[in-house]
Amino acid sequence: MQVNNSPAAGGPSGAASAFAAKSYIETAMILATGDEVLSGITLDTNSHYLAQVLFGLGIKLVEVRQVGDSQKALVAAAKEGFDKVDLLISIGGLGPTEDDLTMVALADAAGLPVYRDEKVLQGIKDYFESKQRTCTPNNYKQADFPVGSHILANDHGTACGALAPFSWQGRTKYLALLPGPPFELRPMADNHLAPLLRAYVHTSYRDQIFRVFGLGESRVEYVLQPIIHRYGELKIATYASGGVVLVLLRELTLGPEPSETFLACAEEIRGLLGNFIFSEDDLSLAARVFELLKTRELTISFAESCTAGLLSGALGAIPGASEVFKGSIVSYSNEVKIRQLGVDPEILTKEGAVSEACCLAMLRGVKERLDTQIAVSITGIAGPGGGSEEKPVGTVWIGIAYQEVEKALCYRFSSDRAQVQRMSVLTALDLVRRMLLDLPLREDVPTDRQ
Amino acid sequence: MQVNNSPAAGGPSGAASAFAAKSYIETAMILATGDEVLSGITLDTNSHYLAQVLFGLGIKLVEVRQVGDSQKALVAAAKEGFDKVDLLISIGGLGPTEDDLTMVALADAAGLPVYRDEKVLQGIKDYFESKQRTCTPNNYKQADFPVGSHILANDHGTACGALAPFSWQGRTKYLALLPGPPFELRPMADNHLAPLLRAYVHTSYRDQIFRVFGLGESRVEYVLQPIIHRYGELKIATYASGGVVLVLLRELTLGPEPSETFLACAEEIRGLLGNFIFSEDDLSLAARVFELLKTRELTISFAESCTAGLLSGALGAIPGASEVFKGSIVSYSNEVKIRQLGVDPEILTKEGAVSEACCLAMLRGVKERLDTQIAVSITGIAGPGGGSEEKPVGTVWIGIAYQEVEKALCYRFSSDRAQVQRMSVLTALDLVRRMLLDLPLREDVPTDRQ
Repeated sequence: MQVNNSPAAGGPSGAASAFAAKSYIETAMILATGDEVLSGITLDTNSHYLAQVLFGLGIKLVEVRQVGDSQKALVAAAKEGFDKVDLLISIGGLGPTEDDLTMVALADAAGLPVYRDEKVLQGIKDYFESKQRTCTPNNYKQADFPVGSHILANDHGTACGALAPFSWQGRTKYLALLPGPPFELRPMADNHLAPLLRAYVHTSYRDQIFRVFGLGESRVEYVLQPIIHRYGELKIATYASGGVVLVLLRELTLGPEPSETFLACAEEIRGLLGNFIFSEDDLSLAARVFELLKTRELTISFAESCTAGLLSGALGAIPGASEVFKGSIVSYSNEVKIRQLGVDPEILTKEGAVSEACCLAMLRGVKERLDTQIAVSITGIAGPGGGSEEKPVGTVWIGIAYQEVEKALCYRFSSDRAQVQRMSVLTALDLVRRMLLDLPLREDVPTDRQ
Repeated sequence: MQVNNSPAAGGPSGAASAFAAKSYIETAMILATGDEVLSGITLDTNSHYLAQVLFGLGIKLVEVRQVGDSQKALVAAAKEGFDKVDLLISIGGLGPTEDDLTMVALADAAGLPVYRDEKVLQGIKDYFESKQRTCTPNNYKQADFPVGSHILANDHGTACGALAPFSWQGRTKYLALLPGPPFELRPMADNHLAPLLRAYVHTSYRDQIFRVFGLGESRVEYVLQPIIHRYGELKIATYASGGVVLVLLRELTLGPEPSETFLACAEEIRGLLGNFIFSEDDLSLAARVFELLKTRELTISFAESCTAGLLSGALGAIPGASEVFKGSIVSYSNEVKIRQLGVDPEILTKEGAVSEACCLAMLRGVKERLDTQIAVSITGIAGPGGGSEEKPVGTVWIGIAYQEVEKALCYRFSSDRAQVQRMSVLTALDLVRRMLLDLPLREDVPTDRQ
C-alpha cells in the first residue's frame, strides 16, 4: 500500500519553510532500537543497507549505534548524535503498538512538536477499510509526525517515515525516521529518502571499487603497497568481505570528470591486480558470471555434491537467471551420482566420491543430461565430519567443461562447514569467469590467514 | 594454529591477582571498529554472534556501537562504555599492520600498561618459521597485551585476544579484545572467552524460546495478549526474524529448577500457539526437519524451480545432512523439467510451469528418480519479471509426497525476489515438518504486514 507520497513537507501553517533554510549534510549516524538485536535474536541488516545508501550519496556515516527498547536510552543516544552529525537516521519503533514510541520521543528530543497528518490518517483508515479490519485509535498514531517533516511513503505497510529539519545549537540538523522491517525500510530508503537527501549533499566523492577474487586481503595490500603512498591525495583502501576483497579508490572532487591522477591510479591498480579483478561496476561474482553468460548466449548447469545447491542458489538469486541457467543435479548421495549423473559405481568404490575421476564423471553427466554449453561440478568434504588424513575436511574438487576443455581442480579450503561451502561456490563461479574470458584457471587457494 | 592457550592471567610480577578482586558482570557493550562496515562494504555479523553468546551467559548487552578506523573515536566510545557497563568487548584492530592499534589504544584508555608476552611471541615466531615466512617487527606487536590479561588463544590466526580486568572510578570493569575475522572471532568467543566470563556471571535468567512459523508477529502478539499481563513477573516478548517469529519467555531466577509460574506460562504459550511452534530447543526449521527425518530414518529429495537450489542448500547446511538428504533436481528450465523429472510437455504448454499439474509432475518425478521416501517440489514466480494478472509475482506451488499422500498447495508470497525465495524455502520445510508430525498442511500465507 502507499499511504502518502506527497513530496511536500507537512504540518500546519507553512512549517515547510524550515526546509528553505537549507544546510548541507556531510555526516550521519544510524540509531537502531530493538531488544531483539541486542539479545542476539535478529541480525541487523538495515544498518548495512543504509550504510550503502549513504555511501552512494557521499554522506559520511560516522557511527552506528544499537540500543534496547528503552525510551531513555534512545533519547540520550539521539542527543549525542545531534551533537556529532548533521543527519541522524533512526530505525524502528514506528508500529502501532504501545512500545512504538520512537516518533514522539525523537521529535521531542529534537525540540519539534508533533502534528497529526490528515492525509496519512485517511490513508490508514482507507487501508483498514479495504482489508475489512477495524482501525483502532492505536493505529491513528501512525499519522503523527514532527512538524516540518517530509513524509516518506511506505509502499509495504502503514508506518510512514519522515525527514525533519530542526535547529540544534544554532545549526540546522536533520532527523530521519524509518520503519524496522527490511522490506519496508529498503524501498523507503531508496525511493523516498535518498532522493530527498541528494539535494542536501554538497561534497561528493568520486569512487571506484575494484572487486577481487583469488587473493587474500593481506596479499592485495602487499601488491598495492608501491602505489598507496605515491598517490597521497587519493584514498586507497582494501576490505575483505565474505571471501572477496574490495579495493576502494576515492578522490574528493566536485567536477564532472575524474582527475588525471585518479585515472592513472585506477590504471595502476588494474595493472597490479590484473585478472584477479572481476568487477569494477559493483557486480557480485554471481552477477558477473550471469552477465558473461548472457552476453555470450551460453547456458550453464551444475552438478553439486558438498555445496548441496548453494551454487545453483547463488546464480538463481540473480533476476533473469533463467535466461542462462537451465538447472542442476544436487547429488548428495552416491546413488544419485550414479543414477542421475551416470557416475560409474566403480569410480565411487575405488577412488571415492571426492576424487578427480568422480568430479569429471559428474561434470560429463550433468553437461550431457542437462544439455548445456558450460557445466560445473563440485564434490568435496565440507565437514565437520567425513575427513581423513589423505582427504581432510576442506578438500574440494571442482570441475569445469566448456567447448573442448574439461578439467577438474583440487582445492584445500580451511575453516568451518559454512566457509568451505562458501569458498567452493565462489571458486566455482570464478572458474566460469576465467574460462569464459580465456584466463588461466587457478588451483591455489586464496586466504586471509596470517 | 594455536599460539597460546594458557588459562593463567599474564603480565609481569603477579598482575594476575587483579582477577582475585572479582566483580560480577551484569552488563556489556560491544564496540566494533572498521570503515568497511560504515561504508556499507561489510555486513557486521560479529556483533550478532557475540550478542547470542552474551545472551546465553545471561549478560545483558545494552549497546552495540560501530565507529570508523579512528583511534580518537575508538577511545572516546570505549570510555563512555566503561562508564555504562561492566564489560566492554572490542572487535577488530588486532592485526599486524600499522592501522591495527586497538590493543594499545584501549589498554591506555583503561589505564593499563602493555607488556610483551614471551610465550605468545615465541608462538608467532614458530608459526612464521613453519610457513617459511619472515617474521617482521610488525608481527611482534601481536604479542603485546594489557597487564593482567587472560590471553585468549586464536585457533585460526596469530592475533590472540585478551580479557583484562581494570579499575574504573573505584569499580572493577572488564575489557575484552577480539579479532575481526569471523572465523577467528567465533571459536575464540565460544571456546576461550565464554568459559572465562561464566565465572563472573552472578544473576542468571531462565529462558525458553519458542520458534513459530506460519503466523505473523502481530498475530502472535495478539494471540498471546491474554497472558502477557497475567504473568507480570515473567517477561514475554516476540521477535520477527527472517520469516520466523520467536517468543521469549524469561524469568529472573537463581534456582536450579524453573518456577511453577514459569512452567504454567510455558504451557499456556504451547496451548495458544499449538503446532505453529516448531522448536523449543533453539533448532532452526531446517535443523528440526533434519532431526525429524533422521529419527524416522527417512530420506528426502527436492525438485526446485524458482528457489533454484536454496531449499537443498538450507538442508545441506546442516552438519550430517547426507544421512537423510539424497539430492535434488534443480529444474530451472522447462527442458530440465521434461528430461530430468519426466514432466509431460503438454502440461507445460497447457497449464504452464507454475501450475498444480506441473508441481505434482515434478514431485512424482523427483521422488521416483531419486528414490526417496519423502519428496518436495517447488515451482513459482520469484520475480521481479514473469508475473501476470492471473499468476502474479509471488505465486508459488509447493508439492509434498510421503507414503500415500501427494499434495500440491498454492501460496501467494509478497515482496521482492529474495523474500519470495526465502518464504518458499521455509514454507516447504514447514510442510515436511507438518507431514511427518501428522499435522494439517496449511495454505494461508503467514505475513507481518499491517
